[in-house]
Amino acid sequence: MKLSLIQLKNLQNNDKNIDHAIEMIEKAAAGGADFVVLPEMFTCPYQASKFPLYAQEEGGTNWKKLSEAAKKFGVYLCAGSMPELEVKRDCCEHVENIYNTSYVFDRNGNQIARHRKAHLFDVDIKGGPRFKESDSLTAGNEITTFETEFGTFGLMICFDIRFPEMARLIQLKGAKMILVPAAFNMTSGPKWWELMFRTRSVDNQIFTAGCSPARDTNANYVAWGHSMVANPWGTVLGELQEDEEILTVEIDFSEVEKVRAQVPLTTARRVDLYKLEEI
Amino acid sequence: MKLSLIQLKNLQNNDKNIDHAIEMIEKAAAGGADFVVLPEMFTCPYQASKFPLYAQEEGGTNWKKLSEAAKKFGVYLCAGSMPELEVKRDCCEHVENIYNTSYVFDRNGNQIARHRKAHLFDVDIKGGPRFKESDSLTAGNEITTFETEFGTFGLMICFDIRFPEMARLIQLKGAKMILVPAAFNMTSGPKWWELMFRTRSVDNQIFTAGCSPARDTNANYVAWGHSMVANPWGTVLGELQEDEEILTVEIDFSEVEKVRAQVPLTTARRVDLYKLEEI
Repeated sequence: MKLSLIQLKNLQNNDKNIDHAIEMIEKAAAGGADFVVLPEMFTCPYQASKFPLYAQEEGGTNWKKLSEAAKKFGVYLCAGSMPELEVKRDCCEHVENIYNTSYVFDRNGNQIARHRKAHLFDVDIKGGPRFKESDSLTAGNEITTFETEFGTFGLMICFDIRFPEMARLIQLKGAKMILVPAAFNMTSGPKWWELMFRTRSVDNQIFTAGCSPARDTNANYVAWGHSMVANPWGTVLGELQEDEEILTVEIDFSEVEKVRAQVPLTTARRVDLYKLEEI
Repeated sequence: MKLSLIQLKNLQNNDKNIDHAIEMIEKAAAGGADFVVLPEMFTCPYQASKFPLYAQEEGGTNWKKLSEAAKKFGVYLCAGSMPELEVKRDCCEHVENIYNTSYVFDRNGNQIARHRKAHLFDVDIKGGPRFKESDSLTAGNEITTFETEFGTFGLMICFDIRFPEMARLIQLKGAKMILVPAAFNMTSGPKWWELMFRTRSVDNQIFTAGCSPARDTNANYVAWGHSMVANPWGTVLGELQEDEEILTVEIDFSEVEKVRAQVPLTTARRVDLYKLEEI
């Protein structure tokens, strides 16, 4: 399987961002990509206060254009993430929620997965960024996996990767790769980005792929970039720097079985000593 | 707290190993150590077939000498690990089990913890070592923590660190540091040693310390060495190379609260979405 991560430059305008993403998907497809991944919150500025202004319902204009692109170019598309508006209407109340949501489309443009970021990013780093997603976002409540012609995949968004329980539960559901639209910053990036992807791969003996926005030093939130893919041994198969670029990597899923046969972490778990389960 | 990891050279003889360890404990104590840690299986050759020959019961000669050393030098002592013989005698049967066991003594020589390796090391690495601990060892069944004047500690042995569930459960019991007598090899060492210690620290926002034997290229099993300490940010506070040496590091436990205040991983776990518990 040929996987392409598009480290997009954010143009701070929804329609321009979508059009630009589609141009880049076309470019990746022309390069032979089977599966294309976009970054976290690529449609809007990464500012909690702006998310409501850019939010669209599932099936909205952005969704339609991306579904069409997947179909047109015949690729699987993990459409990064964007603010999703959910409107609940019934007799007596009108509730609006906004999520940080990733949609996945198959080669025919059908939605085959939707993940709403479950761990909201609320940090206050000394000398670094202060960010409170929970001011404007609602957290998702799902551990997300989906099926493809290449096997089972998992889907997380950024801060979700900081929690080993979620990656483990995804692996227990049979995933051999986890896709992670993500935007680490200039503090968390150098400290933890590569560590997280390598370790979730090593612990679960799976592939992981993190797709970040390109770095924009004028943005309110400056992304680390460094989109990367790690294999089940924890080896980095490819990693970008900070600029806009496409990272394309050949994935050999037989590596999963190879590492598990040699170092049987998956069967050596002490399930008689501890229990991890989805609630 | 001043922590000393003693990366011991293995002399392939039980009594010489114990005497040598005690000399080194004295040296570490003279350097101001509050807590001294020894490596995994430091009393014997690291060969599954040899463990039964070197095994002693809890309270045996090795145990007594190490307890006395802790008292004499007034230090906490995590006495690495050694093969432990457990004899179960009753009316109708005589059962002998051997464990890979770590004892911890307080400054008065009282045993305050005992951990029996819970994840046995059974690997068969292509072009690397083949090792099957379960041929001669029985696995322990405990998640181990203990109390000291510096707070709560956790205790794991080598392969235990490969399983994120165990470190997380130790953290949930209140540990601010996990001690890990361990002997990674020339394949797993360069690939995963530093990654494991850094990540268990980062995920759990605690200190971790790994104490390895020194490298002996003539041994049946060649240890990686590289005894190290990581802080709750995942920063390596100190790391040895392959030779016999003492690594002494000052531990400031207030770092635990500092990182948790800035990046609240401990409170942001989605305990409504997944559940991890000791059985």
